[in-house]
Amino acid sequence: MSILIVGTVAFDAIETPFGKTDKIVGGAATYISLAASFFSDKLRLVSVVGDDFPQEAITMLEKHNVDTDGLQIKKGEKTFFWSGKYHNDMNSRDTIDTQLNVLETFDPVLPNNFKDSEYLMLGNLVPSVQQKVLDQMSSKPKLIVLDTMNFWMDNCMDDLKEALKNVDVLTINDEEARQLSEVYSLVKAAKIIQKMGPKYLVIKKGEHGALLFGEDKTFFAPALPLENVFDPTGAGDSFAGGFMGHIQKTGDVSFENLKSAVIYGSVMASFCVEKFGTERLTEITQEDVKERVNEFVSLSSFAL
Amino acid sequence: MSILIVGTVAFDAIETPFGKTDKIVGGAATYISLAASFFSDKLRLVSVVGDDFPQEAITMLEKHNVDTDGLQIKKGEKTFFWSGKYHNDMNSRDTIDTQLNVLETFDPVLPNNFKDSEYLMLGNLVPSVQQKVLDQMSSKPKLIVLDTMNFWMDNCMDDLKEALKNVDVLTINDEEARQLSEVYSLVKAAKIIQKMGPKYLVIKKGEHGALLFGEDKTFFAPALPLENVFDPTGAGDSFAGGFMGHIQKTGDVSFENLKSAVIYGSVMASFCVEKFGTERLTEITQEDVKERVNEFVSLSSFAL
Repeated sequence: MSILIVGTVAFDAIETPFGKTDKIVGGAATYISLAASFFSDKLRLVSVVGDDFPQEAITMLEKHNVDTDGLQIKKGEKTFFWSGKYHNDMNSRDTIDTQLNVLETFDPVLPNNFKDSEYLMLGNLVPSVQQKVLDQMSSKPKLIVLDTMNFWMDNCMDDLKEALKNVDVLTINDEEARQLSEVYSLVKAAKIIQKMGPKYLVIKKGEHGALLFGEDKTFFAPALPLENVFDPTGAGDSFAGGFMGHIQKTGDVSFENLKSAVIYGSVMASFCVEKFGTERLTEITQEDVKERVNEFVSLSSFAL
Repeated sequence: MSILIVGTVAFDAIETPFGKTDKIVGGAATYISLAASFFSDKLRLVSVVGDDFPQEAITMLEKHNVDTDGLQIKKGEKTFFWSGKYHNDMNSRDTIDTQLNVLETFDPVLPNNFKDSEYLMLGNLVPSVQQKVLDQMSSKPKLIVLDTMNFWMDNCMDDLKEALKNVDVLTINDEEARQLSEVYSLVKAAKIIQKMGPKYLVIKKGEHGALLFGEDKTFFAPALPLENVFDPTGAGDSFAGGFMGHIQKTGDVSFENLKSAVIYGSVMASFCVEKFGTERLTEITQEDVKERVNEFVSLSSFAL
């Protein structure tokens, strides 16, 4: 049992009201991998970096159960770079700089032994690249999860809708759900989006939690109220990693277990935002995860 | 066992993206009373109206278990009137008109038999008027809940802080919690506000649910995702009514039971927004409430 993770591995420079970083290692696939590594020891990465990407970051991923055979290293090219600044509310941000670099010509090539992965996590990327990965799978995964963002809805909605036909779970935020469905009510949006392909929809609402729709049922998981949200970068990807990691660990794709996966996703996201970049995800232990899970249980359980 | 409810009884004219109303009966105490009536048959109302207020609305309240002996009817004066228009997102609104009328000189007078009420719900009103009610109680209620809003923080913060010293539970929204505490993080805000007097704090986040803080514990209740939010007017007051109603019904002011009360409050708010004004609250049955409670359980329960 393994999870194939496709997405960016990148450099970020982040500014929040709490401070700023120089170039640090980031990217959707990095966060997804780190978060999933708390649940799964069979992670397979497909991504691309330039030769400016530090070997120690690759080694760090390998130590977190990641098979990096599908990580292309482009000689003489530069790694994808994103720089952004968060506003005081931490819910909105300005992109200061985006340098696509190696991402501009990224053609994902799945190593042969990756093609039968039981679980596929398509991190936020050009939809046509996500589709190219789907096309290379030799057998249908037990669960395909796709994450995307408003940028692709603005610029290549047709490609995105094509890819959506082939996925089981879509994860987007509330504004993106509204944009994709063209309706305001999230309940109505979920119905419309489920008709586009995904049997399940996860709507990530940041500090307001996450909603799971599927099989005519709805589940809501709160976000943990935190004293300090230090840096929201990667929270959604950490969510996806925890979500997918739990499903692979249990091998159970029922709605009941997807609910648990949403909780584990929320747990990993709650760690991610506590420090800059991937720092917190690389220092926490299984014990920390277990404790945080208990906090979620106590936060949302009641007896009438 | 009885609940003393103090707050406005008023006329509203409401416009939402779904339509608009002429003058209809509203006011915090009206919504609180209607919602609480599903749990309690001993409601006591202290408020004021003009002689333009229809007798049938008073009769309607009486049919909902409300003792109206404390409702002053001012001859030759007009009832408080508020008119507002909601924006497309239903989270923000513009006040079009506010006519204080009888509210300008409102001096609450508690009938003697109201003074020993076991539970006191101080609906949104001038803080000094809320304080006058507190001063008239002959014995300390088992639980005093106070609801307020940013308007009073802007205009009479000192009076509000004075009243807060005497209450057990404060209910406000997230922006108001930030304004009152002068910090952004709701976790930090809760700690600061609890030092002002209230042992417990409920932060109402509208479509994003509600948080309960107290005894170093935190509980989160989701809002029910709805296909249509027709009119948010009175949702917070309906929440307060369901919250207080459940507590009076059970006679239990433990944190565990306050959690249940937050769920019942959320249930009543979820009905309120489904139609204009108080319409939905006056047509639902105990059976509807029971069913909706089950929806909340299914929405938020998970087994890890």
